[in-house]
Amino acid sequence: MNSEWYLAPCANPDQAAAELAQQHQSVLTKPPGSLGVLEEIAIRFAAWQGVAQPQCENILLRVFAGDHGVCKHGVSAFPQQVTAQMIHNFIHGGAAISVLARRVKADFAVVNAGTVEPIDDAPSLHNAQLANGTADFTEQAAMTPEVLAAALDLGRQQVSSADLFVGGEMGIGNTTAASAIYCALLDISPESAVGPGTGVDDDGLERKNQAIYRALAFHANKLNNATDVLQRIGGLEIASLVGAYIASAQAGVPVLVDGFISTAAALVADEINPGVREWLLFAHESAEPAHTEALKHLHAQPLLNLGMRLGEGSGAGVAVPLIQTALALHAEMATFVDAGVSEKAS
Amino acid sequence: MNSEWYLAPCANPDQAAAELAQQHQSVLTKPPGSLGVLEEIAIRFAAWQGVAQPQCENILLRVFAGDHGVCKHGVSAFPQQVTAQMIHNFIHGGAAISVLARRVKADFAVVNAGTVEPIDDAPSLHNAQLANGTADFTEQAAMTPEVLAAALDLGRQQVSSADLFVGGEMGIGNTTAASAIYCALLDISPESAVGPGTGVDDDGLERKNQAIYRALAFHANKLNNATDVLQRIGGLEIASLVGAYIASAQAGVPVLVDGFISTAAALVADEINPGVREWLLFAHESAEPAHTEALKHLHAQPLLNLGMRLGEGSGAGVAVPLIQTALALHAEMATFVDAGVSEKAS
Repeated sequence: MNSEWYLAPCANPDQAAAELAQQHQSVLTKPPGSLGVLEEIAIRFAAWQGVAQPQCENILLRVFAGDHGVCKHGVSAFPQQVTAQMIHNFIHGGAAISVLARRVKADFAVVNAGTVEPIDDAPSLHNAQLANGTADFTEQAAMTPEVLAAALDLGRQQVSSADLFVGGEMGIGNTTAASAIYCALLDISPESAVGPGTGVDDDGLERKNQAIYRALAFHANKLNNATDVLQRIGGLEIASLVGAYIASAQAGVPVLVDGFISTAAALVADEINPGVREWLLFAHESAEPAHTEALKHLHAQPLLNLGMRLGEGSGAGVAVPLIQTALALHAEMATFVDAGVSEKAS
Repeated sequence: MNSEWYLAPCANPDQAAAELAQQHQSVLTKPPGSLGVLEEIAIRFAAWQGVAQPQCENILLRVFAGDHGVCKHGVSAFPQQVTAQMIHNFIHGGAAISVLARRVKADFAVVNAGTVEPIDDAPSLHNAQLANGTADFTEQAAMTPEVLAAALDLGRQQVSSADLFVGGEMGIGNTTAASAIYCALLDISPESAVGPGTGVDDDGLERKNQAIYRALAFHANKLNNATDVLQRIGGLEIASLVGAYIASAQAGVPVLVDGFISTAAALVADEINPGVREWLLFAHESAEPAHTEALKHLHAQPLLNLGMRLGEGSGAGVAVPLIQTALALHAEMATFVDAGVSEKAS
């Protein structure tokens, strides 16, 4: 394995196809621009797929799971064994992302990057278990460089040809890891990076703050680039997402980024390999406060703002039908000439 | 016909069903509230349908069309015959709303409330033609009281049992009528009520302003209630939407309100019969600037904000899958007990 596969260049969106799609939009029976973001979606998919008439039917959906050593500081409202319990729930069809995967007929699987509780093998589970969760990053690196490389590669292995890659994540404690990443990469304070996550109370919020302060102090002067940040204060599932995002961009597969945790992975991926950003579409603005700041940094305008804060890839799952609708309008609307409708006088 | 059918009380949403749905949401395998607006949608549909497990499959979609006498003042970027041309496009499947209707398998029809150009009869067209468009409301009432009553009733006739009523509209010049309604009912200036509509230029914008100023001056002291406003400065298709919204609320059919024009109809309907508001869900925030103000007045939080400004019911058509997704999550997610997942420690 070449440990630096993730630095290889990303694919280039096809600007000629984008222009054809733009021209096609301009002759459809509607005032120019009146479908707003839906027009932009169609044009971006045209560039991504290199065709004037793109599609978004074949959805590759992977949920990466991992546990977090920082949980011992009481940073989550839920006990740590919930990570493993939710993996079972994903596989057995009862979680939000399971319902969403069925609705969009996604190619759906769960990837266990490393939980504290062992998970039995099952169909639609890739049980990689790279480590028994991360180490407590307030007092050591979350993972070794070797485990980081394996987690990135685990993400890469999940990517194959598809109209869209959607990544999800599950890991009790991972809003703390994501917040720590935002602090390190966006240079913001723990207070402004930390939110209630899945519902921690004020004391828990303070414990999250303190854990991040201690982590940033412990790793001071060692968080020199995004790879270091990911290894020292990231998570196994976050690193796998980073690998999957980079590999998607390299393979020319567009990515629909979910919420708070996934955007931290997107930020890291973009810092590691700046070609990634061109392949990212952002599904929704999370209720987690720092997400707004992170989206701004990435010049990202998410499709939805529904006050969601669940993770799993759920915001992305909700946004997929919106993309499909945008492409259906692009493909099926009549032109002014075909419909015999007069164009705007100008 | 009892001319005051529209004052009869609206149905009452079922609060007991809403509470059952709320309880059900609280035991699903997710942090409480983490699905945000999607949870609220499920709970509101439970109240509307009087069942803990509501559905939104049977969509009743009607596009009302009508022409506007005010067009002679050059208020639109498109020539007036486009109203009739677009009716043909709706029927023949090439318009945005036609594509959206197919995607959600709606019961779809177009209702011609009154165009300047005659329309040939066709399947899925209700060719009512109550008048040859409205009169120029800068110098007379847009319609007579008798035509207003007929337009309201035309809307009522379109309502039948359904999981959701979606109304759309088509009428070259109708952003000017809707803006005039907002001026009269929200007491805002033409400058703040008027936007580019389907794409009028700065001169056209000024002509819209001036037309509304003249209309408000001409009808001064006669715009005493929402019914007067609708008759004097409204539109045939807008009045039909008002009738359809009121009839839906009376029949206990929830309404998904589209954008700028539809919200003007919703505002009038709510002023005429305040029970209507309880049955309204707002699909999207339009790019037309005054829409934000109107939504605020109605305490409405729209589901989407995609920069759309097309009308036809298109924003609502795009939002329907979001509602269906919300109800699927409500119906299909596992509970903590069923999935063997530990609840939040509290």
